[in-house]
Amino acid sequence: MAIASSPGPRIAHVGAISLGTPDLETSLNFFRDLLGMEEVQRVGDTVYLRGYQELKHHSLVLFASEKPIVDSYSFRVGRPEDVELYAQELKEQDIEVLELPRGHQAGRGTAIRFMTPYSDHPFEFYYDIDAPEAPEEIRSKLPSNSSRRRGLGVRRIDHYNVQTAPQNVAPAEKWLRETLDFKRREYVHVPEADMLIASWLSVTPQVHDLAIAMSPEEKNGQLHHVAFNLENHSDLLVAADVLRDHDVVFDVGPAKHGIAQSMYLYLRDPGSGHRVELYAGGYQILDPDWKALEWTPLNMDYGATWFGDPLPMGPDGSMYSSTDSASLTSLLGEGLTIG
Amino acid sequence: MAIASSPGPRIAHVGAISLGTPDLETSLNFFRDLLGMEEVQRVGDTVYLRGYQELKHHSLVLFASEKPIVDSYSFRVGRPEDVELYAQELKEQDIEVLELPRGHQAGRGTAIRFMTPYSDHPFEFYYDIDAPEAPEEIRSKLPSNSSRRRGLGVRRIDHYNVQTAPQNVAPAEKWLRETLDFKRREYVHVPEADMLIASWLSVTPQVHDLAIAMSPEEKNGQLHHVAFNLENHSDLLVAADVLRDHDVVFDVGPAKHGIAQSMYLYLRDPGSGHRVELYAGGYQILDPDWKALEWTPLNMDYGATWFGDPLPMGPDGSMYSSTDSASLTSLLGEGLTIG
Amino acid sequence: MAIASSPGPRIAHVGAISLGTPDLETSLNFFRDLLGMEEVQRVGDTVYLRGYQELKHHSLVLFASEKPIVDSYSFRVGRPEDVELYAQELKEQDIEVLELPRGHQAGRGTAIRFMTPYSDHPFEFYYDIDAPEAPEEIRSKLPSNSSRRRGLGVRRIDHYNVQTAPQNVAPAEKWLRETLDFKRREYVHVPEADMLIASWLSVTPQVHDLAIAMSPEEKNGQLHHVAFNLENHSDLLVAADVLRDHDVVFDVGPAKHGIAQSMYLYLRDPGSGHRVELYAGGYQILDPDWKALEWTPLNMDYGATWFGDPLPMGPDGSMYSSTDSASLTSLLGEGLTIG
Amino acid sequence: MAIASSPGPRIAHVGAISLGTPDLETSLNFFRDLLGMEEVQRVGDTVYLRGYQELKHHSLVLFASEKPIVDSYSFRVGRPEDVELYAQELKEQDIEVLELPRGHQAGRGTAIRFMTPYSDHPFEFYYDIDAPEAPEEIRSKLPSNSSRRRGLGVRRIDHYNVQTAPQNVAPAEKWLRETLDFKRREYVHVPEADMLIASWLSVTPQVHDLAIAMSPEEKNGQLHHVAFNLENHSDLLVAADVLRDHDVVFDVGPAKHGIAQSMYLYLRDPGSGHRVELYAGGYQILDPDWKALEWTPLNMDYGATWFGDPLPMGPDGSMYSSTDSASLTSLLGEGLTIG
Repeated sequence: MAIASSPGPRIAHVGAISLGTPDLETSLNFFRDLLGMEEVQRVGDTVYLRGYQELKHHSLVLFASEKPIVDSYSFRVGRPEDVELYAQELKEQDIEVLELPRGHQAGRGTAIRFMTPYSDHPFEFYYDIDAPEAPEEIRSKLPSNSSRRRGLGVRRIDHYNVQTAPQNVAPAEKWLRETLDFKRREYVHVPEADMLIASWLSVTPQVHDLAIAMSPEEKNGQLHHVAFNLENHSDLLVAADVLRDHDVVFDVGPAKHGIAQSMYLYLRDPGSGHRVELYAGGYQILDPDWKALEWTPLNMDYGATWFGDPLPMGPDGSMYSSTDSASLTSLLGEGLTIG
Repeated sequence: MAIASSPGPRIAHVGAISLGTPDLETSLNFFRDLLGMEEVQRVGDTVYLRGYQELKHHSLVLFASEKPIVDSYSFRVGRPEDVELYAQELKEQDIEVLELPRGHQAGRGTAIRFMTPYSDHPFEFYYDIDAPEAPEEIRSKLPSNSSRRRGLGVRRIDHYNVQTAPQNVAPAEKWLRETLDFKRREYVHVPEADMLIASWLSVTPQVHDLAIAMSPEEKNGQLHHVAFNLENHSDLLVAADVLRDHDVVFDVGPAKHGIAQSMYLYLRDPGSGHRVELYAGGYQILDPDWKALEWTPLNMDYGATWFGDPLPMGPDGSMYSSTDSASLTSLLGEGLTIG
Repeated sequence: MAIASSPGPRIAHVGAISLGTPDLETSLNFFRDLLGMEEVQRVGDTVYLRGYQELKHHSLVLFASEKPIVDSYSFRVGRPEDVELYAQELKEQDIEVLELPRGHQAGRGTAIRFMTPYSDHPFEFYYDIDAPEAPEEIRSKLPSNSSRRRGLGVRRIDHYNVQTAPQNVAPAEKWLRETLDFKRREYVHVPEADMLIASWLSVTPQVHDLAIAMSPEEKNGQLHHVAFNLENHSDLLVAADVLRDHDVVFDVGPAKHGIAQSMYLYLRDPGSGHRVELYAGGYQILDPDWKALEWTPLNMDYGATWFGDPLPMGPDGSMYSSTDSASLTSLLGEGLTIG
Repeated sequence: MAIASSPGPRIAHVGAISLGTPDLETSLNFFRDLLGMEEVQRVGDTVYLRGYQELKHHSLVLFASEKPIVDSYSFRVGRPEDVELYAQELKEQDIEVLELPRGHQAGRGTAIRFMTPYSDHPFEFYYDIDAPEAPEEIRSKLPSNSSRRRGLGVRRIDHYNVQTAPQNVAPAEKWLRETLDFKRREYVHVPEADMLIASWLSVTPQVHDLAIAMSPEEKNGQLHHVAFNLENHSDLLVAADVLRDHDVVFDVGPAKHGIAQSMYLYLRDPGSGHRVELYAGGYQILDPDWKALEWTPLNMDYGATWFGDPLPMGPDGSMYSSTDSASLTSLLGEGLTIG
């Protein structure tokens, strides 16, 4: 049905995070052999991976880099023309936009790249992406899975959680809502100071595809964590069991958030130190008139940790940002050196 | 952002099923005391319930009725004006539309009611609905839950699965896709006969908000089951344990579907005989270019039952439709007698 | 087969803990209505409860008391004559033994009561105990369950964890091993100081039926916690979810011990403040030549908490003993007043 | 404490099953790579495996064999002298006893071998067995685990389920109880015919270490299945998910038994066709006065399958015995050829 149409561009879902790692083989061992992701393609020192329930080419890019760094946070848009529509919109806002050719990330079509205003995170938007079949020896009999469940059962990327300087949280989040149509689902603020501390945002019924919060280091462009999704709470407990026995560093968890009602385990990729959240469960938001749920420092203990190992909040450092982002110039491609 | 706009109306999500039951107290005992739903309001012999994770007024209506019957399958639309936009569209198609006043279902605003073409299911569309706080003695501390988890932990309605005469599956499903913008996610057909047997449809990232299939009795307007959602696979096992000990009749399960990748337990409301599915897990579809997954009788064993107690298919009767639907005239309201 | 016989007496399993509570109704609400235990019998201000998988009369006694206190830790012995055989053995060791008549605890036969040497915990031994059928409205169809699973699914008592003054841990534990044939399964000690800090002991394949550790308050006769058993790890997560929403005080958890490999959630009975552990999983010891596993302060972090919310160790108080024990004279019976 | 002593010999626990397989590499792939057992030692065409929670040398022996066959069901006894005490007892009963030298199974001390009266299963008893550390690359940090949890998480052998000709069930079971001190825990019989159909027996608090039932083929010496233990119900669901995707043949499950209250998944080792049960949960029996629970054909549907995929009973074949046993002469050792 189409009474009227041609709506504006939209983001469809989280695409892929591109992580620089000083120890590519250790990172690969972690994501592929322990977490169970599929190595889809390798191009030089860049490796493309996906979860067993992802049909598209990749949701994680690992590339060799002197320092841990995030090269990009990508999102897939809803229609082919939305890449160009977003490019126009960004340029109208005087935001510098790079055009990335087909194959800049393997398997992906043309894309645009820009730095988010106020918060300085390198975002990339694309529509076209290959959907390669997995090799027969790991291919699933289920058409909704690309490969059989393996390792600890990461089935897909879930969300990005980023940080920025305290004074930038509010304007950056406003921009994400107004320009990219992210909806605010839950948020923490200090009412007395009219200060936004953190916001959980989504374009899907997930409570968050993207969260943004204050950086305790007061720095822009920070990654707090990237989350990967497991099927059940019990899978998270098994993952904790096994990863603990592999001496993977746990920041916190397993435990359950009040916000999003999901179980979490925060740990570090042993190859890079990037913080990864293993994530399971949560509620979904289908209500078209959802009112963002408000949290304040007074009840935030429930929100951060509903039960289990409590999320540290404050100056103890363990929940500090894990890593910096690249600048507008992508690190993928020829002559890559970072240091 | 709004480069252009005023798109057509859309369905936001499944609303509530309205079930007539010959034994209201036994049905209430089942849904409220065993499954753990909240009795939100009672008006005469009509009771409104919701799951602990539903903030709106109700997702289940139980009313006294001589025979088990479905009075309506309701859906909430995306904007206030969408109720009227759909009414116009339906009338243009010469479909008879009833206007239901505010309060026809308690807590709900004005709505429209019509019979689906080809398949004869009474659908209702509404936007406005109250979001009452639960009584303090069961209220949750989490703002995303209306009440505390109780009983076997039904948190929300999940989907409807309806049946129609074999020759009507294809046209009815086509109408649902074309007029109501349901997207086909998975389907079973007989390629040689170009015959559609079943289709899983959604307007959300769920694999299905609505499924439609052939009625083995070759009747229109049939309910196969209504599904309610539990948080984890393990919750389904606990529910099976407890309900088995209460002598609730199980049709099939617990087991896991290949289609939708969800765990299921089909059982009967002891008060009415309506088939209810307890449902947990599943994958979500965020890809804007999702291609409906095809199943045929040759591989359908995987699709219906990936593991566990197999779904019977064929003439043994256990997966026949559970109950008929009402006609265009709603049974809710004054002077209700059905028999 | 019996080449030779008449072995000494033996303890068969943990019997029941008897807890004094200043708020009997709140404690009952906790153990019966939330945790799901059956109220088997009430005699004045004393209530007898059991889990749904216990066929015998009770495993928990709650009685009104001005202060929270443990009246007794009981154990069932292996044969009727073992009660008297233990009485003789204790008297030979100049330990004072009280003879308790049939019905001192309702449903129980004659018993003996004594204070454990060095650690001052009131132990009771009995053999005879009734096995009443549950009332028909909650009776299970399974003959191995007394009642249907209800509430959060406590199925049986699991173990006692007691504390004593630091210098008494070693001699008290030695006495438990030598006189009562408890086997040491895992233990923590400081090798340099030849100091035993904690020991996990059992007469069954469980890793512990009884644990004894240093009291941070340096007091004898302390209860650290009594544990009740749930079927699966997932049941523990559900219990945490629900109890958190009821504002029950959590000391620590959910998380997993390295020692015993079980999941734990330590919380407080809201009526009494006694610490209760909800407990699930763990390994079993069938090896007849089991060598007690050794832990030291150097690796004890793994032992106490394998993953999740870490057990506090040291002077922060939260894992201090929960409550004192009664003296040799039982508080159950006529004219009870404690204060 | 030892008022009197020198009791007779006793069985401590299930030891290892020794399975002949026509396709050793496929069987190894199944037990080691999919189920996650450790390959501890290989001697020629014989491979020794154990679960991650077993500290002793092995609980499964796989050896190349033309046909699938069970070479032995072994049990560990409680004391070194019990091997010889049992040998004497058996000889007094005119049962032929083979003495097996140290190393007949690698890592094991001297053992005896005999055929069970009436039922013709080759049993072996031993006490001494090595407890090798796992190689460092898979060694667990937990001293109660030999290796890290891997694959689908088999942690230990659980029990044997054997079959014999219908008229032999009663005398064979009586002999197991009277000579080997197995206790009857649950049983199925036809009261009118005074016929024992099946019995679940244990020497530990497990409901069964050994079950014996009628062979539908009316043959002695049959294996119905050998069971391996997983930690939680949820692990069984994950195992079903993965094994289904590997096209492993499922006989029945996942589902839950009423008898023993455990979850089950019966499947076939793809290399040999031996039936294997993946098994999780269950209740334990600590009562010294346990009365065996009685089932009859009238309520046996609950006992066999409490919920989920029902165990077939009767002539449909799927729960027929999986394989024959060897005779008194062990197939392990030099010059092995079977066919």
